[in-house]
Amino acid sequence: MRAGGDRAKGRPGTRIRNGRQGEVGVKLYEKLAADIEALVKQGVLLPGERIPSVRQASQHHRMSITTVIRAYVLLESRGVIESRPQSGYFVRARAGEPAAELQPSRPSAKPSAVDVSALVLSTLRSIRSDDAVPLGSPYPEASLFPWQRINQYANNIARRYAKWTMLDDLPPGSPELIRQISRRYLENGYAVNPNELIVTIGATEAINLCLQAVAKPGDTIAVESPTYYAMLHAIERLGMRAIEVATDPVEGIDIGALARLIDEKGVAACMVMPNFQNPLGFQMPDEKKRALVAMLTGKDIPVIENDVCGELYYGEAHPSSLKAFDTAGIVLHCSSFSKTLTNAYRIGWALPGRYRGAVERLKFLNTLTTPAIPQLAIAEFLKNDGYDFHLRRVRKAYAQQASIMAATVRRFFPEGTTTSRPAGGYVLWVQLPEGIDAMEMYHAALEHRITVAPGHMFAPAATYRHCIRLNYSAEWSTGIETAVQTLGKIAQHLLAQGRAHPDSKNHG
Amino acid sequence: MRAGGDRAKGRPGTRIRNGRQGEVGVKLYEKLAADIEALVKQGVLLPGERIPSVRQASQHHRMSITTVIRAYVLLESRGVIESRPQSGYFVRARAGEPAAELQPSRPSAKPSAVDVSALVLSTLRSIRSDDAVPLGSPYPEASLFPWQRINQYANNIARRYAKWTMLDDLPPGSPELIRQISRRYLENGYAVNPNELIVTIGATEAINLCLQAVAKPGDTIAVESPTYYAMLHAIERLGMRAIEVATDPVEGIDIGALARLIDEKGVAACMVMPNFQNPLGFQMPDEKKRALVAMLTGKDIPVIENDVCGELYYGEAHPSSLKAFDTAGIVLHCSSFSKTLTNAYRIGWALPGRYRGAVERLKFLNTLTTPAIPQLAIAEFLKNDGYDFHLRRVRKAYAQQASIMAATVRRFFPEGTTTSRPAGGYVLWVQLPEGIDAMEMYHAALEHRITVAPGHMFAPAATYRHCIRLNYSAEWSTGIETAVQTLGKIAQHLLAQGRAHPDSKNHG
Repeated sequence: MRAGGDRAKGRPGTRIRNGRQGEVGVKLYEKLAADIEALVKQGVLLPGERIPSVRQASQHHRMSITTVIRAYVLLESRGVIESRPQSGYFVRARAGEPAAELQPSRPSAKPSAVDVSALVLSTLRSIRSDDAVPLGSPYPEASLFPWQRINQYANNIARRYAKWTMLDDLPPGSPELIRQISRRYLENGYAVNPNELIVTIGATEAINLCLQAVAKPGDTIAVESPTYYAMLHAIERLGMRAIEVATDPVEGIDIGALARLIDEKGVAACMVMPNFQNPLGFQMPDEKKRALVAMLTGKDIPVIENDVCGELYYGEAHPSSLKAFDTAGIVLHCSSFSKTLTNAYRIGWALPGRYRGAVERLKFLNTLTTPAIPQLAIAEFLKNDGYDFHLRRVRKAYAQQASIMAATVRRFFPEGTTTSRPAGGYVLWVQLPEGIDAMEMYHAALEHRITVAPGHMFAPAATYRHCIRLNYSAEWSTGIETAVQTLGKIAQHLLAQGRAHPDSKNHG
Repeated sequence: MRAGGDRAKGRPGTRIRNGRQGEVGVKLYEKLAADIEALVKQGVLLPGERIPSVRQASQHHRMSITTVIRAYVLLESRGVIESRPQSGYFVRARAGEPAAELQPSRPSAKPSAVDVSALVLSTLRSIRSDDAVPLGSPYPEASLFPWQRINQYANNIARRYAKWTMLDDLPPGSPELIRQISRRYLENGYAVNPNELIVTIGATEAINLCLQAVAKPGDTIAVESPTYYAMLHAIERLGMRAIEVATDPVEGIDIGALARLIDEKGVAACMVMPNFQNPLGFQMPDEKKRALVAMLTGKDIPVIENDVCGELYYGEAHPSSLKAFDTAGIVLHCSSFSKTLTNAYRIGWALPGRYRGAVERLKFLNTLTTPAIPQLAIAEFLKNDGYDFHLRRVRKAYAQQASIMAATVRRFFPEGTTTSRPAGGYVLWVQLPEGIDAMEMYHAALEHRITVAPGHMFAPAATYRHCIRLNYSAEWSTGIETAVQTLGKIAQHLLAQGRAHPDSKNHG
């Protein structure tokens, strides 16, 4: 609705010429459909963009409503456009196009110490500046968050607390928030036990506590390749080692490869993000989730499931989670409101299965309590049903922006560039042609006041030195489009430079 | 001002009889002084209680103002009462009385694993109930906290944030809060480097991060004996071992004993609370602070200084800290606003000396950011100079309640009971006669809806099984007095039981 709306309405060049409407042998609606399809193929109409409404097109091309509808139905049947209820018609992501696909990763199977936090922190700091285009940010752009309402709830709650006893804030957390989160899971299709839930300082603390509950310093932890660096941080913090597991960009971690590593390398636990993985954006299919839990149950290996993006699906319904298939209590499920509602409040939670006691104790030791007012404010927001309305808006915006970002990258980046096809969330993984170093790209982009997240942050080794992650949570604008275009030019330049001086590429 | 005010004003029995005012050889003011001193000795007037004003006493006893003033001056010179500016005259703590003194501790010099958190958590949970007298609480009673004003600041700040970027919240924390905290140190007598300061989730996180920065799992950490269990929690959380160091109840840790342990046992770091130590309440003298830092600098051993009660002094001026004597950067100074301003906001900080880089990185890994609104609200409160006014009230109340609590314990507890003499803070350490087990006392008290903190929580071994800690931060009331009386009866009963069945005492 938001992105691209202005452009679709009246942009020159999108007008279908109908001067030849009397032409023999070609039906009028077929001609209109062919013309629109051509515009899409030429990149004039971008994936995710809204095309004119039936009424607009009818006026614009001086055709009957029926003709336009027949053209649109034809285009829909060909997979060129799609209709969205109450929103209109949109150019579809080009699922069938011949562009190169991301291939499943084949990482080295050696455990290694983790030391990415310094790079991540310095990268995040570079994004702080207000005038940089924050394509490297890990956070959803904040303007879609319902600040006013949540802050209002917090204010009302604070006003009621003239007297406070911190003892009420002891773990596991606010009973009302726990009730609301549990209700939310039920609405999303599966029951969780409220008595299992522990409120934390964001998912960051949840992941840290869960990992500490199941493994000890020196242990080897299996992670997806690439993996979200929040996972790597937890491993680094506790002095453990990470081992990367082959991961499919559409279906997620390779269960067979993981099983072999567990048998051969003595893995203590694994950490995955089955829904809208950061950075790949995939949604692991249900049967694969079930199979993963079954395999790990058989080997008695706990798994930490990061589900912070679970609510940001583009499909019809909330995806399941590993937790939904867990009967043995080996899944330690972590989530938060930071990616979906507000990241300023730092409210997350863990459902640690059979490790609940240990996680609660560690929560108490780590930060004693989670502040109560933010917990109660979010509980109030959930209770008053503002969450679904808010999420529907966010999902729609992200889905549209995902298509536009991917298409824009394909348009401006060098040949040989491939991208992920996010099924949810708000980040795109971009694999550059060999020879472009992401750190060089990061530094060059920074000089143009654009940030990107270099692939180096997503693995313990330099596995992804030719990849970057782009954040598309901000409303699409010409500013962003220009930034992506600039990134494309930088990539072209680095590629040319690399080919001229191939030796210099070994030190990025 | 608050505590005991009503009772002092018109209680029967405090009236000095002056029927014999013509008596030969004894001056009228001396007689009045002697009568008041007798009431103090009999425990009718309690330490910390306000005695009638000069004007009231003059009317009450039908004596001239001058006579009363001469009597009060005499009592002051004898150390029986003290005058407090703008407040009147108060019965002094009986510094010179012959009651048994707490002796310096002589703990075993064996490192041991730490496992106190389960006990602490279950004890804290028992205090949650609103209808229990919370003498076992670790937290200051909340009614003295300026909730309304701080919440008001938070509300105003939240209202300004229609748009938020979490990137601004990255460690080290809000620049404005850091500035205000640094200014506060300067006002309190020593400069700290604002660039060294890192904001944390309460002092709990600060202590955890500092300990992790200087030691690794399995290392031995020296602690005071008894020690605040927050220190033990940090050691437990990281799988380290604690070794107790002999500690004087008035001057703090035994520097010679600590030096020997460092040489003989390979101590990696030590953790102390030099100001108003929890549970002993002492203030380590300046020269001893200086000597401790010098000794540790010589041996290159880092020290974590917990200064959460530094602002709660009963003396004339803010005490110094180890940090003030640190030139080598070995002091990792931790503090918070939880004990002095609001514990619901969970804002603490670390000044980690030369370990700053490591602590900042660990902060980032542990909880990513500290929520910004609470930081900014407290900064605003500090900026508007509400803090000093607030603290003056709190210190005065705590100082008075300290004397009353100690005197009440001495009045009702069995012979052989000794107590600490807190120089600040809000907790009293009570050593019961041998044969009373603090856990039994805790359970018996709970049946009377009274909580106490059993000594078992304050050492890795069962060193303090015959001690309890009492919180006197709540305004003194007959309810609290009755609770202390009940505790005294329980102690008498347990003592008698223990003497009747000495064998049963070995299993508390």
